[in-house]
Amino acid sequence: MDPEELAHLVLQLAVLLMAAKLFGLLFKKFKQSEVLGELIGGMVVGPFALGAITLPFIGKLFPVIESVGEHVSTLPISTELYFFGQIGAILLLFLVGLETDAKLFIKYGMKSLGIALGGVVLPFFLGVWGTMMFGFADNIMDTSALFMGAIMVATSVGITARVLSDMYKLDTQEGVTILAAAVIDDVIGILILALVLSLAGGGAEGGDGFSWVQLGTIGLKAVGFLGGMTLIGWFFGKKLSNVLLKLDGKSYMAIAAAICFAVAAVAEMFGLAMIIGAYLAGILLSVTKVGKELEEKLAGASHLIVPVFFAIMGTLVDFQAMGAVLVFGLVISVFAVIGKVLGSGLPALFTGFNFLGSMRIGIGMLPRGEVALIVAGIGLSAGIISGEIFGVAIMMTLITTLMAPMILIPLFKNPKSGLKNPPEEDNIEVIEPYRVLKQSPHFILAMRDFLIEEFEKKGYELLRVDKIRGITEIVHSEDKFKILTVKRDNGILTIDCSAGSTADVDAIVASGLDHFEQAVASLKTT
Amino acid sequence: MDPEELAHLVLQLAVLLMAAKLFGLLFKKFKQSEVLGELIGGMVVGPFALGAITLPFIGKLFPVIESVGEHVSTLPISTELYFFGQIGAILLLFLVGLETDAKLFIKYGMKSLGIALGGVVLPFFLGVWGTMMFGFADNIMDTSALFMGAIMVATSVGITARVLSDMYKLDTQEGVTILAAAVIDDVIGILILALVLSLAGGGAEGGDGFSWVQLGTIGLKAVGFLGGMTLIGWFFGKKLSNVLLKLDGKSYMAIAAAICFAVAAVAEMFGLAMIIGAYLAGILLSVTKVGKELEEKLAGASHLIVPVFFAIMGTLVDFQAMGAVLVFGLVISVFAVIGKVLGSGLPALFTGFNFLGSMRIGIGMLPRGEVALIVAGIGLSAGIISGEIFGVAIMMTLITTLMAPMILIPLFKNPKSGLKNPPEEDNIEVIEPYRVLKQSPHFILAMRDFLIEEFEKKGYELLRVDKIRGITEIVHSEDKFKILTVKRDNGILTIDCSAGSTADVDAIVASGLDHFEQAVASLKTT
Repeated sequence: MDPEELAHLVLQLAVLLMAAKLFGLLFKKFKQSEVLGELIGGMVVGPFALGAITLPFIGKLFPVIESVGEHVSTLPISTELYFFGQIGAILLLFLVGLETDAKLFIKYGMKSLGIALGGVVLPFFLGVWGTMMFGFADNIMDTSALFMGAIMVATSVGITARVLSDMYKLDTQEGVTILAAAVIDDVIGILILALVLSLAGGGAEGGDGFSWVQLGTIGLKAVGFLGGMTLIGWFFGKKLSNVLLKLDGKSYMAIAAAICFAVAAVAEMFGLAMIIGAYLAGILLSVTKVGKELEEKLAGASHLIVPVFFAIMGTLVDFQAMGAVLVFGLVISVFAVIGKVLGSGLPALFTGFNFLGSMRIGIGMLPRGEVALIVAGIGLSAGIISGEIFGVAIMMTLITTLMAPMILIPLFKNPKSGLKNPPEEDNIEVIEPYRVLKQSPHFILAMRDFLIEEFEKKGYELLRVDKIRGITEIVHSEDKFKILTVKRDNGILTIDCSAGSTADVDAIVASGLDHFEQAVASLKTT
Repeated sequence: MDPEELAHLVLQLAVLLMAAKLFGLLFKKFKQSEVLGELIGGMVVGPFALGAITLPFIGKLFPVIESVGEHVSTLPISTELYFFGQIGAILLLFLVGLETDAKLFIKYGMKSLGIALGGVVLPFFLGVWGTMMFGFADNIMDTSALFMGAIMVATSVGITARVLSDMYKLDTQEGVTILAAAVIDDVIGILILALVLSLAGGGAEGGDGFSWVQLGTIGLKAVGFLGGMTLIGWFFGKKLSNVLLKLDGKSYMAIAAAICFAVAAVAEMFGLAMIIGAYLAGILLSVTKVGKELEEKLAGASHLIVPVFFAIMGTLVDFQAMGAVLVFGLVISVFAVIGKVLGSGLPALFTGFNFLGSMRIGIGMLPRGEVALIVAGIGLSAGIISGEIFGVAIMMTLITTLMAPMILIPLFKNPKSGLKNPPEEDNIEVIEPYRVLKQSPHFILAMRDFLIEEFEKKGYELLRVDKIRGITEIVHSEDKFKILTVKRDNGILTIDCSAGSTADVDAIVASGLDHFEQAVASLKTT
């Protein structure tokens, strides 16, 4: 590999990473999905936009790659860069798996099942139907149509969660229902991808399409892999966790990543997508002790690679191809909205929510984001879907993910309850500033950590930890009227809480002060 | 890119990362260089060893790649993987640059200059001469010979630093001299690489080798780049640092990495190696406020990529080629030892060290490690050096880096001073356990951070922070008899110190307890 070629790749990487971060931060500033910013960053600098301009010394930053050796390339960018990005996708799905909140799933899973299923089935069939309607597929078993369906399925709950959390609404009935439904949604979406991908692979090998024997074999292989891995995880997950925790943080992170890569590669051998393997590996480790630690370490490390993945997805968007299918794209986007608002909203009407609550849930499930992008990328790179369908998928992702927060915020600002029979006290539960402690940053940090541990001992659990802004949201596991946030900004600790938990806050702060007082006293006497 | 191919690459990555980590940890356990373990991990699983075995389902894990498109490949592994590894090398050199201790350099630079220069010049010429002696080069301007010389130059001080730190000898005259000399060593080594690489490039283009005009042009370009970048860094470094510090940690890490990649790519356009650009970017940022923060964040993130780089270097080792040049390799290794022991040791004799001190310094400068590996990799991939010479370089790196700690430990266990005129009190400066504080982990953590800040206010400076083992080494900036270590293990804080600083320790611990007492009291009254 000659140094010049290598340097050009490194320059491409530099530009992609920079564009991803700058657009990502810009989007974040306007309360939009960072992922979309990263995607658009890649679109802007990629081979179909600025990257096509011939520069002095460098030439075109992103010349469109047309062939690899003797083969026609399915991708307009180099395989080296694409591989780098794929590692990002695998790490991301591993992280999504690690972040899976099994507790929430068990608690609200049954209630959310209908909402999740409706939000899977309707978008899938609308996607298939839309693709046929515009002549990109002949019948319902056409892989292009099935792939479009698969792309439409998975909710990307990140942006909804951030909007609700900013409004302190993540703990509402609507909030937890959305979170739980999105988990189920992810799992089903990824299973659908597995099935569609297997069908596509089978079709390509077997010649003319579909046979029940083939489908059976494919299903057996997939179930065999998922079952086998789950068994391995069940039996060895805890042991692995204990071994990993004996190592330093950097080492166990690297080893866990290596395991995730291996499981991803094996998944592909069983006819599944690599991200399915990575996701499964994440879920299996999420229930072990090392899981939460890993999540934190990897989230840091993956920040060098994951944004590059989304920017690379952006570089694949051929605007000309996308322009030719603008109407198709708009219709699919409308279908994507209908699919979730009706698909998830209708079942919500039958599980205790009123019209307002159902709308909140339907819109909350709207953003497609990362999983749709990953699935679309797999289809394009494997040659299963065309550049046009890829463009449509990107358009749909952009529109749904941009729309959601704009509608969600007014819907949740409405003070009315989203439940058919709201409990009388439902409006009392307001969080207000309660106590502020000012001291040296060292003391405040220690105090914060001590207090949070004490809350956990008293039956509270952590709803959300925002390390960047130093906010911890805490709710009592049995009494949802006891809710509070602890915010640390250097030497200032602010505790906001609901009326129900002021007594607990007082008691725990007092015990914290006693603890530190005794600590000093005991050390002074020795 | 078809999914099967992609999955095979991901599997290769998984195996490389796993092998790198396992062998790295094994080596670390035996107090050897982790980098060597990672290298050997790659050798073991690579295309010339286990990777060549045909496995069921997978086939050969690492089939030797013989061509890329129509070109003969200079590398036995895929360009996708190689590119991934190169990103690791660039990040590593960026980190080395960020870690550069400018203070130490300014303080001990002049004294260490002769030691560093001797340790550069002698190994370089021995490398060139050895290569000619074994018939791998015709004359002194042959690029193979010059490259071998360049590989022999740079000391990798990491392993020496770790050995000395474990023995509490890093603050001895020998210790600081080695550290400072290694900094100079790195800079000169990288300049030599720039020169040799430019000559090689010029030779390949211009046909038959050397002309003064060409050398002038090359030199001008290189100086222009280094000077230009330094000016840019000088004027904009602080502004950049301030802008970056306004972002969250993950974002500024990613943006800094993007900048480093861009500078690396531009360096290549000026005829320098990419790692030179990365190193320079690191040095320029190391003096800014964001530098130290970056170092920490990036060190975590790079742990997923850097070990892969060393493992990839291992996969490039063709044992057959290496076997054929075993004698050459052994002679070069002996030259590498002589080069540093005489080259650095003799000048040490003239700067106040006795025979023992000079030996300590010469052996301390012995390990070659990462820089040698990177330089050798550049030569192989660009087709400047052959597989044989690459094998010799690896052998030399392995032998020198394994040898150093075995000799260093007994040399430093010898209680005699390494100075010609040791100050009378030189043996009094012993660190002994002084105070132990036991309390809740929260309290101890806050106390530790508070105490360290207080020590810094009283004119102490941090010599070394080992986050993994929770040890901070602190020395008074003007009085080197005031030296101490603070070790935290959960709820136990151990302070070991020299006799000179017991009074300071008492005062500062007391002030810490007072501080926390007052903190509690002030919060209790409000």
